[in-house]
Amino acid sequence: MTNVFTTSSVFGELLCDPKIAAEFDAPAFTARMLSFEAAWTEALGACGFVSANDANTALAAIKAFSSETLGRGSDRDGLPVPELVGALKSELDKGAAGAVHTGATSQDVIDAAMVLSCLSVMDEMTNRLDRIVAGLDALLRRFGDNTLMARTRMQSALPATVTLRVDAWRRPLVDHLAKADNVRTELAVVQIGGPIGLREAPQPCVEACAGKVAEILGLSLGPVWHADRSRIVALGNWLTLVAGSLGKIGQDVALMVQQGIDDIALSGGGGSSAMAHKQNPVRAEMMVALARYVAGQQGILGQAMIHEQERSGAAWALEWLTLPAMAEATGSALIHGERLIASVERIGAPD
Amino acid sequence: MTNVFTTSSVFGELLCDPKIAAEFDAPAFTARMLSFEAAWTEALGACGFVSANDANTALAAIKAFSSETLGRGSDRDGLPVPELVGALKSELDKGAAGAVHTGATSQDVIDAAMVLSCLSVMDEMTNRLDRIVAGLDALLRRFGDNTLMARTRMQSALPATVTLRVDAWRRPLVDHLAKADNVRTELAVVQIGGPIGLREAPQPCVEACAGKVAEILGLSLGPVWHADRSRIVALGNWLTLVAGSLGKIGQDVALMVQQGIDDIALSGGGGSSAMAHKQNPVRAEMMVALARYVAGQQGILGQAMIHEQERSGAAWALEWLTLPAMAEATGSALIHGERLIASVERIGAPD
Amino acid sequence: MTNVFTTSSVFGELLCDPKIAAEFDAPAFTARMLSFEAAWTEALGACGFVSANDANTALAAIKAFSSETLGRGSDRDGLPVPELVGALKSELDKGAAGAVHTGATSQDVIDAAMVLSCLSVMDEMTNRLDRIVAGLDALLRRFGDNTLMARTRMQSALPATVTLRVDAWRRPLVDHLAKADNVRTELAVVQIGGPIGLREAPQPCVEACAGKVAEILGLSLGPVWHADRSRIVALGNWLTLVAGSLGKIGQDVALMVQQGIDDIALSGGGGSSAMAHKQNPVRAEMMVALARYVAGQQGILGQAMIHEQERSGAAWALEWLTLPAMAEATGSALIHGERLIASVERIGAPD
Amino acid sequence: MTNVFTTSSVFGELLCDPKIAAEFDAPAFTARMLSFEAAWTEALGACGFVSANDANTALAAIKAFSSETLGRGSDRDGLPVPELVGALKSELDKGAAGAVHTGATSQDVIDAAMVLSCLSVMDEMTNRLDRIVAGLDALLRRFGDNTLMARTRMQSALPATVTLRVDAWRRPLVDHLAKADNVRTELAVVQIGGPIGLREAPQPCVEACAGKVAEILGLSLGPVWHADRSRIVALGNWLTLVAGSLGKIGQDVALMVQQGIDDIALSGGGGSSAMAHKQNPVRAEMMVALARYVAGQQGILGQAMIHEQERSGAAWALEWLTLPAMAEATGSALIHGERLIASVERIGAPD
Repeated sequence: MTNVFTTSSVFGELLCDPKIAAEFDAPAFTARMLSFEAAWTEALGACGFVSANDANTALAAIKAFSSETLGRGSDRDGLPVPELVGALKSELDKGAAGAVHTGATSQDVIDAAMVLSCLSVMDEMTNRLDRIVAGLDALLRRFGDNTLMARTRMQSALPATVTLRVDAWRRPLVDHLAKADNVRTELAVVQIGGPIGLREAPQPCVEACAGKVAEILGLSLGPVWHADRSRIVALGNWLTLVAGSLGKIGQDVALMVQQGIDDIALSGGGGSSAMAHKQNPVRAEMMVALARYVAGQQGILGQAMIHEQERSGAAWALEWLTLPAMAEATGSALIHGERLIASVERIGAPD
Repeated sequence: MTNVFTTSSVFGELLCDPKIAAEFDAPAFTARMLSFEAAWTEALGACGFVSANDANTALAAIKAFSSETLGRGSDRDGLPVPELVGALKSELDKGAAGAVHTGATSQDVIDAAMVLSCLSVMDEMTNRLDRIVAGLDALLRRFGDNTLMARTRMQSALPATVTLRVDAWRRPLVDHLAKADNVRTELAVVQIGGPIGLREAPQPCVEACAGKVAEILGLSLGPVWHADRSRIVALGNWLTLVAGSLGKIGQDVALMVQQGIDDIALSGGGGSSAMAHKQNPVRAEMMVALARYVAGQQGILGQAMIHEQERSGAAWALEWLTLPAMAEATGSALIHGERLIASVERIGAPD
Repeated sequence: MTNVFTTSSVFGELLCDPKIAAEFDAPAFTARMLSFEAAWTEALGACGFVSANDANTALAAIKAFSSETLGRGSDRDGLPVPELVGALKSELDKGAAGAVHTGATSQDVIDAAMVLSCLSVMDEMTNRLDRIVAGLDALLRRFGDNTLMARTRMQSALPATVTLRVDAWRRPLVDHLAKADNVRTELAVVQIGGPIGLREAPQPCVEACAGKVAEILGLSLGPVWHADRSRIVALGNWLTLVAGSLGKIGQDVALMVQQGIDDIALSGGGGSSAMAHKQNPVRAEMMVALARYVAGQQGILGQAMIHEQERSGAAWALEWLTLPAMAEATGSALIHGERLIASVERIGAPD
Repeated sequence: MTNVFTTSSVFGELLCDPKIAAEFDAPAFTARMLSFEAAWTEALGACGFVSANDANTALAAIKAFSSETLGRGSDRDGLPVPELVGALKSELDKGAAGAVHTGATSQDVIDAAMVLSCLSVMDEMTNRLDRIVAGLDALLRRFGDNTLMARTRMQSALPATVTLRVDAWRRPLVDHLAKADNVRTELAVVQIGGPIGLREAPQPCVEACAGKVAEILGLSLGPVWHADRSRIVALGNWLTLVAGSLGKIGQDVALMVQQGIDDIALSGGGGSSAMAHKQNPVRAEMMVALARYVAGQQGILGQAMIHEQERSGAAWALEWLTLPAMAEATGSALIHGERLIASVERIGAPD
């Protein structure tokens, strides 16, 4: 997902989601790293570790900051924060420079920015889920009483109504919406640990500033989680559930639209370069592929739990390689889901 | 995990967990399927669908039931329930036979028995987690103030104390214990849907009996979840978190025990067939391997969300192939964790 | 796969394969470890490192060896070899004891025994593949000219014949048979490296004995591969291909047997506990589940490539947790495949 | 890999590989699709299915083709080919339009273009592997005789030399180079099957043209492989092996560079935002993360073997989601590997 192949202009938006992607791109992520740095500077000032004047000078520099060189810094340091902090400080006198990042560490910045990106992603996703549930409600109203052969183990089982199947699509989505609050609460905790995950040392300002930074960023304050990646994995699990439930809908629709079964009629559908009569259930198929993709990534993301000592470069990078792609894939599945449901012209058979 | 290789007597209990395995074996699982059938018969009687007499006759047969032929039934039917029900009924007259399984379906039985097995697994696991947390508490008391070099990205960072690292081991385990309640609540819901996941039809007794069966089995009653496997995946996620946090401890210990680092001293340790001086951190290594195994299985279990139509034989079997093995692997990691912590003779350096 | 749940008598042979499992169980694996030790002793004698008398005494002890305590050794040492070697030596005088395992290490023994088990597994699998190909040939002869609607993207495409589809089932199996030779050649290399993967040291007998041991075991001699697990992963890849091609057949059959499509008729088929008319395509479904399981395990087995330094306990154990289960799952898929094909009563429609 | 996060300018080239990515981007992939269409048109002319004049007119249009609307086509059709073919034909008269794509299908185009991209990727990768092997040769010459403590199960085992370890890094890379030829031969087969994977029908030109198209594209002609994805999985396996062997090097280096071990000295190394003295082994860590990522993707790519009927939209898209990302991740690991080896200032200890 969101590799150059699937995000190239050749493949359009078939397997990507520009809106979700934009939550992880350079402008958005840089802005969120700067939000953290600004909150940190503000906290240093508010807690009296630096003068109000130095804090204000530093804040102005943070607000005005822009850099083309973060990538170069990442190439060298494995992440962009040392370059970002260095660039910020280089424009300031010693006092104001001391109001930048003092006591914080790169992981505090990246984890906080990642949390903010993910929370924004969840907002968009729950909105899409709401719309999909509304779409399913409309299907239930229009077609709920139509007859539909229930199928178990891919075999005709007993005659039923459309409500049976569409309710089974709708229920888990409503559950995932309800669970989103817990995932969000677990995720919305500031990760502040300073260089080694110890707020008390080496600089006592970390302990003092952490709560203030959390407040400014709209996050809550809990224990340090630098080496405990459970909440990242929990978010991945939620994405797996959402994508999985959409994949089930896609699989069902692909089966229902088979000639000979004819349990559903869709408007649109993909054309073939060789067979003019074909009308392929493209969105349904992509929902299946994306669900399998996201579920599989979760098996890789889980490896990042084995996060050695006080910070693992390797395990942490594994999160970066998987989580944003899982978010974008789930986002893409939500778009397909909404449009697929909107394209339903009939389900089941009128009496 | 728990393939014949790792469960053979050659490998002892290195990579298996007989106690957790026993929750999924033939005696335990058959007993739980019979618990469901007994509850169903009792409910049919209590709700007036069969006579008290027929219910009692059927209950006596269910209690006395034993069969060697369930495997043969699975070979034929893909699961043991048709054989089990057929064998039960074959011993009864028509009235009492009607008090067995009427309105229920194989999936109701298997899913309920699986839930009961998994709840029992969770009981055992939370007990083990409690003991591990207590073991870590003891380490903190004995060695918490010892000095230890904090390491980030596998490099020496800053001097710290043992408390920093052991707290980072302990915190997520306490969190997983706290989360166990939610996982259990989500899981402890009876799955009763009859042949196609519809309680109202074809036999109205399903709707009436479901609540009674739930009560008898000590489960709650919620919507049908025959085709929504979210709660199974949620349990898998909890196992991934538990195994993952243990894997992190194992990885840390394996790194700490390196000669030249010498941050920990362990009693015991594995011997080598070629180098008499070796003392290998076997438990720590197994915790890493088991964590990677469990995390990876979750990427497969998640594929089972794509559960087509009213019942998928293929997706459902994928749960059977992964979940019990994940449970046993996590159980094994818990055993190693408890013993590893008990074997610590020193962490860090006394001042 | 082959967890206690799927191997319990309740589930019969639905998701396991006792014959493949028997290649990895305690008797078979112990016998193969002893074959290695016998070859080693013989080589020590043949190369003049020990006297013929001592070698013969040791060989007799190796042949007569049986032990109930290997599991206890694994619990302690992380593998059974130190216990096995210790037990062997404890029965011998000093001279004959020196003819046992001298210069070898545990990994030499385990890897060699694993290779021998896997080669035997491949023999059985290629036999089964041959029979499946023969079964498909018979289908082609009987039904090849029957008409069948070709389906692309699950939609009716163009009318064709049964030959189109069954050829597409057959071709990859023939390819996998052809590739089996390469996989076998790559795998059938003795892994002899002594304690640290260096044949020249610490004991020069390793270099001298390696070729002789290979010859006795019917393996070839190549460079040490103690820390390069490519050939294990290559075997896993072959299993993934075999199981995957069977999964494709299973998926096709499950789709073809749907009422409304009716492209295939099968004898047998699984019964339902609730719906007497059901005839479920159980074997086809299991082939899909097993293919997904094996493919997913390969994603975990591949993690074992990251085998640190001269021997990784954790990465190595990950092979043990996955490879035998992959073999058994593939074996089970082959059994289902053979029987599924034998159960075909009709494919397509006679003109 | 290559999600927007890791490819954003913020992360530089830490976890991406622009050169490999460029083999899958819109210009390169469109050019390769057009190469197929040109070869097809040429073959139609050469085989006499269309007039030389029409073929030439069509070829000129294909050469001149450029389109901004392929993405829109993919959004609608699930792939860009119907839009591409439609756009090509819309500019031509009926005769020349008949010389475009007649008898071919979308999958023929996409699979051929994908094969061409992957072969070009393999060229670049084998060049990089050659350079890495040369770099390791140089290390062996400079430091091979330095002493190094061999470590098994992360514990000191026996004193050895640097040659032991660096040879173990080098050997598998040489093997992967040798195996690249087989992978390439297996992959370099044109996939031409027309609409349903049948060269003989519905249009006989497919059979006639396939060999000519293969010749023009520099590929060989074998049986249709539309629904048999073994060669794609085989390429994924090769990438897993290459990335895995690099991951092993990275893991070793990260362990060797630990203070207290000090088995290697590197120039450069990543800085920290909080600890000025840190010099992090960033490249080594990324090699580990990328190896785990690629190995995990292979577990998802393998699911694409279950490719239903004559063409699976869902299984095919799963290849698109994983394979290009695996290629780019492996490419990135190769870059890190080459630079990491070039940065070695010392391994082991001079006598």
